Amino acid sequence: MNHTDIARRVYNHTWKLDPIIRSLLDTDFYKLLMVQMIWGLYPNVHVTFSLINRSKTICLANDIDEGELRAQLDHALSLRFTKKEIIWLAGNTFYGRKQIFKPDFLNWLEKFQLPEYELTQKDGQYILRFHGPWAYSSMWEIPALSIISELRSRAAMKNLGRFALDVLYARAKAKMWNKIERLKQLPDLNIADFGTRRRHSFLWQRWCVEALKEGIGNSLVGSSNILLAMDTDLEALGTNAHELPMVIAALANNDNDLHQASYQVLQNWNRYYGGNLLIVLPDAFGTEAFLRNAPDWVADWTGFRIDSALPIEGGEHIIKWWQEKGKNPQEKLLIFSDALDVDTIEKTYHHFHGKVRMSFGWGTNLTNDFENCAPQNIANLEAASLVCKATHANGRPTVKLSDNPEKAIGDSQEIQRYLNFFNPELSTAKPIKI
Amino acid sequence: MNHTDIARRVYNHTWKLDPIIRSLLDTDFYKLLMVQMIWGLYPNVHVTFSLINRSKTICLANDIDEGELRAQLDHALSLRFTKKEIIWLAGNTFYGRKQIFKPDFLNWLEKFQLPEYELTQKDGQYILRFHGPWAYSSMWEIPALSIISELRSRAAMKNLGRFALDVLYARAKAKMWNKIERLKQLPDLNIADFGTRRRHSFLWQRWCVEALKEGIGNSLVGSSNILLAMDTDLEALGTNAHELPMVIAALANNDNDLHQASYQVLQNWNRYYGGNLLIVLPDAFGTEAFLRNAPDWVADWTGFRIDSALPIEGGEHIIKWWQEKGKNPQEKLLIFSDALDVDTIEKTYHHFHGKVRMSFGWGTNLTNDFENCAPQNIANLEAASLVCKATHANGRPTVKLSDNPEKAIGDSQEIQRYLNFFNPELSTAKPIKI
Repeated sequence: MNHTDIARRVYNHTWKLDPIIRSLLDTDFYKLLMVQMIWGLYPNVHVTFSLINRSKTICLANDIDEGELRAQLDHALSLRFTKKEIIWLAGNTFYGRKQIFKPDFLNWLEKFQLPEYELTQKDGQYILRFHGPWAYSSMWEIPALSIISELRSRAAMKNLGRFALDVLYARAKAKMWNKIERLKQLPDLNIADFGTRRRHSFLWQRWCVEALKEGIGNSLVGSSNILLAMDTDLEALGTNAHELPMVIAALANNDNDLHQASYQVLQNWNRYYGGNLLIVLPDAFGTEAFLRNAPDWVADWTGFRIDSALPIEGGEHIIKWWQEKGKNPQEKLLIFSDALDVDTIEKTYHHFHGKVRMSFGWGTNLTNDFENCAPQNIANLEAASLVCKATHANGRPTVKLSDNPEKAIGDSQEIQRYLNFFNPELSTAKPIKI
Repeated sequence: MNHTDIARRVYNHTWKLDPIIRSLLDTDFYKLLMVQMIWGLYPNVHVTFSLINRSKTICLANDIDEGELRAQLDHALSLRFTKKEIIWLAGNTFYGRKQIFKPDFLNWLEKFQLPEYELTQKDGQYILRFHGPWAYSSMWEIPALSIISELRSRAAMKNLGRFALDVLYARAKAKMWNKIERLKQLPDLNIADFGTRRRHSFLWQRWCVEALKEGIGNSLVGSSNILLAMDTDLEALGTNAHELPMVIAALANNDNDLHQASYQVLQNWNRYYGGNLLIVLPDAFGTEAFLRNAPDWVADWTGFRIDSALPIEGGEHIIKWWQEKGKNPQEKLLIFSDALDVDTIEKTYHHFHGKVRMSFGWGTNLTNDFENCAPQNIANLEAASLVCKATHANGRPTVKLSDNPEKAIGDSQEIQRYLNFFNPELSTAKPIKI
């Protein structure tokens, strides 16, 4: 049995493609929730998703081979939901609810395939766009990002020898475990893996999630990655994202519709889901404006996700608003999901502990932190600040402002129009962290 | 090919024994050199080797299961030198010399098997002895020590889960690589693996040696482990050990023979080997006494191995003696092999750099340093200070004094007799480090 397994060896040595996306479930859970609603309510809205590289010093087209990128995107095109996956989606409980996905939607998913992509290059950057009915193009967001993120890692590590790789991963594991040991010190911490989109690689994300599960036990409340949640018996977590208000706002035909876009999204969401899924993402056009104009029923929702404001400042802002609305923050939930590392988690945890329920959606610093891990200097092993956003809806440009002007997305004239409309007083800039 | 390899799985799950010693070459090179001479010159001397645990707080019989120990020792008894191994010993160049092992000796090796062992328990300690003609019993030293060392590691790790083990080794690798990065800063460093006897495990020793090779390149001048040297194309290194003067001294029938024991060993050694192999190990009965009484030709030898004196103090002592004998230390070699870690290597290197040629025989801190690597508190993962020594020769007790009274070995009356004889002025104690 110490002899070489010849078949395995030949297979390994004639390897055609190591697919990055091996399942359509290898995406964030919020996508399926949103897409079910989009498919039901907006079947005729045509949306373009576009890759946006916020790290301008990173020239993706120089770092990643176009042929490899196409091979990975093509492989993703070939994927279908498997029978087992559909059965699991139908039979599993999500957020305590059975049958969150309706039979008609699951029938549609069974036949789903990703729409074609459009890929060109300009000035060392890839222009990567996905066109189609919203429910189709939207499904590219996470696979597109994780393909590019993993291709960057692979390219960065291409010239590392066996030992350099061994040491790289050894250090990364040691580093990850040190973070886990710090998180262990926080009783009744609630933290979830939100790291799919900018992960170093699928296998590394899986290692990190399994390590977290082993290390902090029930404090790991789940993963946004549906495949990992299924395979490791974790809760699949996530609610909704900016694309909903962005597209609805872009479709608005008058000031009133634009004003109501964010609240209309929430009303539709409540019709579809409700309960623990009633999490407000308030910052698409600035949290300040959102809260100022919010109908009273928004304060009845379970919680808010703070995705671009500073955690403590942003959290205090929401708490104050809840109190003004006569709500007890201790019964409310804050989800922090922007630029978290162990320092910010600890600081935020200690600040809010006992004042409000809280949960952390830990992303890039969980699944792609290789700082000081390489045994030699190699470039491009740090995560890039990439997003894949709905940029056009029925031909109209979309806009996201967020609470951090550095994270604003859209045509600059349109951004200005939204700023003037929603939020005449500019919020303070902070540098983007991912 | 993603399916399970059933044969391998069944094999793994019906595993009878994971042998620690898989080859008689998995021993230190000095053994074969010494045994060739012992076999030639002292075929009728009967020597007992005994396990000696200098870490009295460690109760080996509680830590290690006797059944497992016997299974490993029995497996070692079943080993023979393979044809390939004998051919390699015959055909390889050692210390620049071809055919260092004579055909008659290789014929003897071909039939060699380890002699029976004697194993009992007393007060939580194992009494483990090997009796036989010197050339036979001597061959147990290294396998006995590495079996016990690895069984201790296995016992210590027995209750660790998959992640704890993963993190343990990740941290150990990261730690090892940090040491390598420090050693890389020392130009023309010469360092060798001397870590077989107290290694964490065979596989871990191999990883460390391969990592060193990758990391410091030619600064790794070889390994004392013959099997590793063969498998990784490194030089097999090592010359002679205390057992030679200890046994010859025990056989002495009068004061003059006892006086001459150390020098007689060197003369015989010179007849058998010579050249680069002329390394003096002066501390069996104290370096002070050795040098005081040494014939002039000892100063013509290539170098000294400092094995129990403090490196800088001990090295300066030898340099001063060479100078008194009219020798140029820059043409001489000092080999440091006692209790080395990166700190002592750096300090010693910088102290002697340019003054004398030097080489480091790195042992336990290379192959068994898991301090702060376990993700939970576990006992017994630190190396024990174990040795396996010639304790009787033709029924007479042996003695080793060394330059560190803590490392003295033998019956206390005999030690006193040797002390009075060789070295009436006691050397200063320092705590044993391994």
